[in-house]
Amino acid sequence: MNRFTDTTICAPATTPGTGAISVIRISGPDALAIADKVVSCRRGTLSDAPGYSVRFGCVYAPDSVLVDEVLVSVFRAPHSYTGEDSVEISCHASRYIVETILGLLTEAGAAVAMPGEFTQRAFVNGKMDLAQAEAVADLISSQSSASHRIAMNQLKGGFSSELRTMRDAMLKIVSLMELELDFSEEDVEFADRSELMDLVDRTVAHCDKLVESFRLGNAIKNGIPVAIVGATNTGKSTLLNALLGEDRAIVSDIAGTTRDTIEETLNIDGILFRFIDTAGIRGTEETIERIGIERTFKKVSEAQVVLAMIDASDDETSGATSSDALNQLSGDARSIATIISANQYCLFILNKVDKCSKEDINKKVRDLNTFVNSPVIQMSAKNGDGIELLISELTSFAKKMVSDSDTTLVTNLRHVQELSETSSSLRRAKDGLLNGVPSDLVSQDIREAIYHLGSIVGEISTDEVLGNIFSKFCIGK
Amino acid sequence: MNRFTDTTICAPATTPGTGAISVIRISGPDALAIADKVVSCRRGTLSDAPGYSVRFGCVYAPDSVLVDEVLVSVFRAPHSYTGEDSVEISCHASRYIVETILGLLTEAGAAVAMPGEFTQRAFVNGKMDLAQAEAVADLISSQSSASHRIAMNQLKGGFSSELRTMRDAMLKIVSLMELELDFSEEDVEFADRSELMDLVDRTVAHCDKLVESFRLGNAIKNGIPVAIVGATNTGKSTLLNALLGEDRAIVSDIAGTTRDTIEETLNIDGILFRFIDTAGIRGTEETIERIGIERTFKKVSEAQVVLAMIDASDDETSGATSSDALNQLSGDARSIATIISANQYCLFILNKVDKCSKEDINKKVRDLNTFVNSPVIQMSAKNGDGIELLISELTSFAKKMVSDSDTTLVTNLRHVQELSETSSSLRRAKDGLLNGVPSDLVSQDIREAIYHLGSIVGEISTDEVLGNIFSKFCIGK
Repeated sequence: MNRFTDTTICAPATTPGTGAISVIRISGPDALAIADKVVSCRRGTLSDAPGYSVRFGCVYAPDSVLVDEVLVSVFRAPHSYTGEDSVEISCHASRYIVETILGLLTEAGAAVAMPGEFTQRAFVNGKMDLAQAEAVADLISSQSSASHRIAMNQLKGGFSSELRTMRDAMLKIVSLMELELDFSEEDVEFADRSELMDLVDRTVAHCDKLVESFRLGNAIKNGIPVAIVGATNTGKSTLLNALLGEDRAIVSDIAGTTRDTIEETLNIDGILFRFIDTAGIRGTEETIERIGIERTFKKVSEAQVVLAMIDASDDETSGATSSDALNQLSGDARSIATIISANQYCLFILNKVDKCSKEDINKKVRDLNTFVNSPVIQMSAKNGDGIELLISELTSFAKKMVSDSDTTLVTNLRHVQELSETSSSLRRAKDGLLNGVPSDLVSQDIREAIYHLGSIVGEISTDEVLGNIFSKFCIGK
Repeated sequence: MNRFTDTTICAPATTPGTGAISVIRISGPDALAIADKVVSCRRGTLSDAPGYSVRFGCVYAPDSVLVDEVLVSVFRAPHSYTGEDSVEISCHASRYIVETILGLLTEAGAAVAMPGEFTQRAFVNGKMDLAQAEAVADLISSQSSASHRIAMNQLKGGFSSELRTMRDAMLKIVSLMELELDFSEEDVEFADRSELMDLVDRTVAHCDKLVESFRLGNAIKNGIPVAIVGATNTGKSTLLNALLGEDRAIVSDIAGTTRDTIEETLNIDGILFRFIDTAGIRGTEETIERIGIERTFKKVSEAQVVLAMIDASDDETSGATSSDALNQLSGDARSIATIISANQYCLFILNKVDKCSKEDINKKVRDLNTFVNSPVIQMSAKNGDGIELLISELTSFAKKMVSDSDTTLVTNLRHVQELSETSSSLRRAKDGLLNGVPSDLVSQDIREAIYHLGSIVGEISTDEVLGNIFSKFCIGK
């Protein structure tokens, strides 16, 4: 028996909780017959109902007690999410009612759906390819308009069609190469070698670009990482609280975060940022305790934006001379500068300006500017001064980053791995072409590249790969 | 402008979370027109779609970006939950997508629904009476088959029709009485006084029975309260854990429980029990510290079942003589007996029998039986021995309690109050009849009774009462 063609599955499609209604999904060859056994409709049976129609009905327990009055939507193959006959039962959102109806459905012959099985069936039935199916999960978990946009583009098949174009071109040329092998004694060349070389070069470049886009795509999906660094007591946590306290949008802890660094996500203007509050870095170079804050450095090195906090009031409170203060300041700036790499966007924040005179601040900004090229934002995180400016700097950076990227953004690690494999195979093929390696070996490398591209959209797939992908879905999807 | 007739409302109808789909409800005169502004259907408009049909459509943001592909169910007045034109949009269960669609709907002219407003509209439009509307909330929160059955009976109008029968009979007779007043000079009697007296007596009896049923109805709705009492260290918490550890059904903390007593609900065989783990009561009467455990006593007095725990091994571990042990045992039993009232069902549990010899146990059971009439269950809560027997005793008690009650069960405090008022008014009317009070005063008392009965089903209602009832609903219901 084939689970996907012979069984009918059911599962709750909405989150259990205290909403008004809950929806239960049924899909498979017997969806309508099973629903008819459980739901008594006032007029006719569900099996007689046309697709895209709704029926009012009652669900009774075996002892004839009314379980609920429900609305049932009927979908007929292939015009449904799964491509199979499907039914959606909309009942009152009581856990007891949902569980009772699911119990009645399984008694009537339905199997309980595995996680992601509805979407897996949609894939099996050709309603979507694998990359699109994976986009469904991303779409559901999308928290910002930017991540939603990427997932929706992938769901609509934009990414898949790019891959298919590359794959088709290679399939065509490799077929010609393999045809030559049949005529190997005649030394013909059906596949134009310069055209092949050109195609390989263009595909490698495209794959590499897609792999490179993962950095941005992942940042948009999980939040652009922004590290807040600086010496202890410069106000890093106060800044984080000030940013979050604005109640701008969804805010949550990231699960599994180690307590070494605190991470908070914040949705600003439709873009998700992931703020990382690092452990304080000691002021002068010689006292930097590298052991124990290694992890902080790693987090900072992975960030795309670094907010370097300097305590503007530091020299005043310690009563140091102005020359000491400059040394202290440059020490701070220098120790931060050592851990920031060239491709990170750095903003210096001169905090606690409410404690300093205007002259003092101006002098410090000038001092800072002699050391660093990054913008300097004057701030009082405590009073909220400078927060708006920081936010506008962050969003304009993020928007520029997104708009600079004209390519499709890859957000899925599996896709990146397959694209990297594609690229490697094609590089080997190119080496072979350049070094006069026999055509059958070159074509084998190209076949490998085609395989990897195909496995992204699921033209080639194994049960293991599919199981791995769909098991991460929720039940009912 | 009348909010209920002139505005169109929208709200999410499913719990936000990580399900597969979310449903957004729209209801009101412009439901279809507003939905048409937000959802682009492939074929035709929603305004042209017949009731009980489903359409596939796309939702676009103002910048033409696709927000989601959705399924839209169309319902036309009066054949909808609210009795108004209604639309249900089924989208992917992303918080971002749900919020975006709700934003688009409000921009298109829909108002955000108040809690319970969909059900309140159903009431206003005569789709259900007030008692039925209140049953919707009970139905959604029902956690056991017994509470589900009461809510469903009330939703189907069983309770309402009983009230209506009483009310109609009284209306008829009071009209006749009032007709007499128009002919007061002629001293006629249209309303048969003995028939009236009989009706008043029957109605008072019925109301009192319904009021009395609240104790059981409330117990079934919120769990039959079972207090576990006994001296410290007799194994009360172990018993509670053993009961809960069976993972029989829904188990949850009751919100707002003070830490003086621990309450846990447990669904056994479709009946909800609320176990109350009381603070330990000291063994001998003189040392009972009444101050501080007053609350425990109150909880015990409110319980319908009392489980009295006795430590069978107590005299062995303390090394006391057998005569001391008997005194100790009777002391325990006596101190428990003092706080149990006649209408409570009490079960004595002789715990820790695994630590005692068979002879010892038999002797203790005999000793106990000389003091109390209640059944004695031998138990080792630690090993789980005796738990099954206890559960079967509890369920058979509960089932007997439910089956003994042939009347409708009232579960709503508002209804109980109105029924008590009805009963009081009718008693005054009866006194008046017996004491020759003028008919106009008697009829006024009966009118009051009619008013209170009517306010249960909502034939008489004020905005304040309605607001109070529906504000306890969730948004989207």
